[in-house]
Amino acid sequence: MPRTTTHSVYVTFGDCDPAGIVFFPNFSRWMDTASLEFFMQCGVPPWRELEKTRGIVGTPLLEIHTKFLKSATYGETLTVTTHVEEWRAKVIVQCHRITRARADGAAPDLICEGRETRAFVKRDEHDRDRLRAIAVPDDIKQLCS
Amino acid sequence: MPRTTTHSVYVTFGDCDPAGIVFFPNFSRWMDTASLEFFMQCGVPPWRELEKTRGIVGTPLLEIHTKFLKSATYGETLTVTTHVEEWRAKVIVQCHRITRARADGAAPDLICEGRETRAFVKRDEHDRDRLRAIAVPDDIKQLCS
Amino acid sequence: MPRTTTHSVYVTFGDCDPAGIVFFPNFSRWMDTASLEFFMQCGVPPWRELEKTRGIVGTPLLEIHTKFLKSATYGETLTVTTHVEEWRAKVIVQCHRITRARADGAAPDLICEGRETRAFVKRDEHDRDRLRAIAVPDDIKQLCS
Amino acid sequence: MPRTTTHSVYVTFGDCDPAGIVFFPNFSRWMDTASLEFFMQCGVPPWRELEKTRGIVGTPLLEIHTKFLKSATYGETLTVTTHVEEWRAKVIVQCHRITRARADGAAPDLICEGRETRAFVKRDEHDRDRLRAIAVPDDIKQLCS
Repeated sequence: MPRTTTHSVYVTFGDCDPAGIVFFPNFSRWMDTASLEFFMQCGVPPWRELEKTRGIVGTPLLEIHTKFLKSATYGETLTVTTHVEEWRAKVIVQCHRITRARADGAAPDLICEGRETRAFVKRDEHDRDRLRAIAVPDDIKQLCS
Repeated sequence: MPRTTTHSVYVTFGDCDPAGIVFFPNFSRWMDTASLEFFMQCGVPPWRELEKTRGIVGTPLLEIHTKFLKSATYGETLTVTTHVEEWRAKVIVQCHRITRARADGAAPDLICEGRETRAFVKRDEHDRDRLRAIAVPDDIKQLCS
Repeated sequence: MPRTTTHSVYVTFGDCDPAGIVFFPNFSRWMDTASLEFFMQCGVPPWRELEKTRGIVGTPLLEIHTKFLKSATYGETLTVTTHVEEWRAKVIVQCHRITRARADGAAPDLICEGRETRAFVKRDEHDRDRLRAIAVPDDIKQLCS
Repeated sequence: MPRTTTHSVYVTFGDCDPAGIVFFPNFSRWMDTASLEFFMQCGVPPWRELEKTRGIVGTPLLEIHTKFLKSATYGETLTVTTHVEEWRAKVIVQCHRITRARADGAAPDLICEGRETRAFVKRDEHDRDRLRAIAVPDDIKQLCS
């Protein structure tokens, strides 16, 4: 089974729209946080440090794909469960499932499920403002698998 | 050619993250606004009114799928161009392309492109808190095609 | 000493601006959440319920006044400490202090401090869309003092 | 009369909360944008450039104080009107009034009014991570008065 981490989110009044439910871009916001938490919980040093030691700036997002199954509202606590679903040569696909525990003890409700495609990037040697995708580093793959 | 509308966005400092570029959930936020603008510019009455006259509450989001091609930053003006790509029996797929004009007069840069799958819903007659997907209304399809 | 509650906030990447620090309107967002948490932790029923039983819709904001002393950044955990500083006839003043614990065990750093002036409101009997400020309810004052 | 600029805001669905009105931290967000627009419309070069030529990094916020008079909702266009109310030795006070035009041609409705206290800062010569408040530059005062 792949390495899996969880991140907890408390839904606030201001996260919700006039329909009284979570305004959907907030789910993307929480998945982004869960993505960074995943790397840190797996033992990957923060990007700040990796930039200094190895030039790796971060993992910019190339693509997101999210399905919304149930709505959520303020006062609820949600759990984002994250793992890497695919390790390709130059990109990874992270999968996030956002669930809500049920009072009746049944399996948690799946609120939404999203996949993020991300690349590892370094700064170009000749033009520091340009970022270049690099091969997924083996040691990071090791830590996060 | 399908009916197409545009919506303009001025990127602000607070829309950007520590990398100095637009924090990506904001693109979803702008596509959501462009989606509503599309219907209104096509002549569909606001949901508030449609709920009273026909019980149609809105078009909740079932799925989003976005590809990010270039970054954008504050001080830039972006254009969201929107049309409906697919009219299925009970759902529609809206396509949004976010572009940035170029100073050199070349074709605008494509920043990101997203597809939103949405359903038209009414309140259930017996349980007003439940929403039910309905067939896409013909007259709305007419106005928006 | 007045009744005091605390609310914990984990600062995320997306909460920060291009300067790498918390974009300040997020502090207002967190104080708003802490305000609602305060009432709930003091035992006040949720507004949803109070609206049904007593017509009290909530505590809209009349005024905010915040001083920013230090910056905060992502990865940090902040604490919002909340109490009611003034009980006037028709309004209350809530005080929120946002602090960050120090690794060296010294007193926490004060990041910012804000005061929110709020009124308790009911719907007008004749015009349900209008809200009217009411005298601060004695039992709520009792619970929250 | 002091130099005054205006900035236009279109309120979106996602800017509003479950009460159907603008979630108040968004007003702070719009005032922040109006603050930057003010300097640029007055002819002050962007901070990016000023940092290179004169070391001035920007105008961090020390204090905000906002009064909320009427609510606003999505679909409305608001105007933020901005001027500098006080030029002190090391800080300035910017005043922002957010108004909404009326259909009946009467004076616009005042939605909220806020004051932001800001300092001009440079990086410390010996510790680049530290910012130091400087005297308000005369030429900038000239441009913005």
